[in-house]
Amino acid sequence: MVKALIFDVFGTCVDWRTSVAAEVAAAGLAVDPLAFADAWRGEYQPAMERIRAGARGYVPLDDLHLENLHIISGRFGVEVDETLNSAWERLDPWPDVVAGLQSLREHVLIAPCSNGSIGLMARLARHARFPWDCILGADIARDFKPVPDVYRASCAVLGLATDEVMIVAAHNDDLAAARDAGLRTAFVPRPLEYGPDQAIDLTPQSDWDIVAGDFIELAERVAQQAV
Amino acid sequence: MVKALIFDVFGTCVDWRTSVAAEVAAAGLAVDPLAFADAWRGEYQPAMERIRAGARGYVPLDDLHLENLHIISGRFGVEVDETLNSAWERLDPWPDVVAGLQSLREHVLIAPCSNGSIGLMARLARHARFPWDCILGADIARDFKPVPDVYRASCAVLGLATDEVMIVAAHNDDLAAARDAGLRTAFVPRPLEYGPDQAIDLTPQSDWDIVAGDFIELAERVAQQAV
Repeated sequence: MVKALIFDVFGTCVDWRTSVAAEVAAAGLAVDPLAFADAWRGEYQPAMERIRAGARGYVPLDDLHLENLHIISGRFGVEVDETLNSAWERLDPWPDVVAGLQSLREHVLIAPCSNGSIGLMARLARHARFPWDCILGADIARDFKPVPDVYRASCAVLGLATDEVMIVAAHNDDLAAARDAGLRTAFVPRPLEYGPDQAIDLTPQSDWDIVAGDFIELAERVAQQAV
Repeated sequence: MVKALIFDVFGTCVDWRTSVAAEVAAAGLAVDPLAFADAWRGEYQPAMERIRAGARGYVPLDDLHLENLHIISGRFGVEVDETLNSAWERLDPWPDVVAGLQSLREHVLIAPCSNGSIGLMARLARHARFPWDCILGADIARDFKPVPDVYRASCAVLGLATDEVMIVAAHNDDLAAARDAGLRTAFVPRPLEYGPDQAIDLTPQSDWDIVAGDFIELAERVAQQAV
């Protein structure tokens, strides 16, 4: 029996792309806001990879976002105010997420398992009205997904075995790593995460335990299993 | 400006003594429930001290509670069901706590900084209806208060400096350790934590930043400072 659902956040729970672009536009930068958002996010995996590979000690994602902002603003040839970094704390949820989480919360513990810091996730939860029971993920293991310990440590601090925890993500690679770490898996596609031309993660790439169209359907499926 | 309030929980937010005693009585043990609760809690500091001193690796408080339950039930000469250990997830709050937290939450981030695990604190928050933004404390540092890193790591994962965070506790020693670690401090007395004969922590033993009679008054004081 699954006792907790833990969630990827960027892309799975929130539409980071149009949210960041809106903040970039509001900041008055003379750039294409969506291109700037895509470029900023494009530095996300490379920055974490140095830490996952052990070439750099753990630093929270907030700091990586700020470093990447400086890199990108240089590339676009614009001056930015560092306060723009807090755009990542004001990402808007996909329309099904809050209602789905409230329904899921009646059956299981719910928590983010994100590469974002606890502070970032707490502030984002205030903005997006996510009713988390606690915040798990990178800060718990001081490493970044898909390193197995991030998933395992998140289960351990709940006092649960890995097979009592299900991860929810819109990304097949996140689910694959979590399954290898012993967790159950649920895929919810977000075909617009990267915009209208998205080519990856449009469909489940494996036999995940649950495949649901959105968080409302996910909640219905979990409720059935909990009966 | 204080941006987050973090809270001691056992004694400060919840009345562990009469709550545990009620669970002991409901379990039908042939013991004095309050004496059993006091004895169980009496093993709390010695069990953590071995870990703080480095004589044992970190284990979550849930496990220490269970070990201590076996010790105490042997001493009282009774057989217990291990499910009694979950009594610590169903502690009742002092009557001012939930309203105070809801009011405080309008001004600052709020989180427990307890020696309890994230899982224990999450389940207790469900029972007691604590509206935490996230859960900090022992599991973040893999050590127990009053080790300085528990306070410092709790501030760090919020992305805040220690002097941007205030700890709230009914225990002068907790506040002293947190102040030494750089945090601000608020004392709220809980004169019945240990029952009607309590002799310690009845009054503030230092010039804490705030001394308030309950969480309602605490919220009023924090709101004034936030103006």
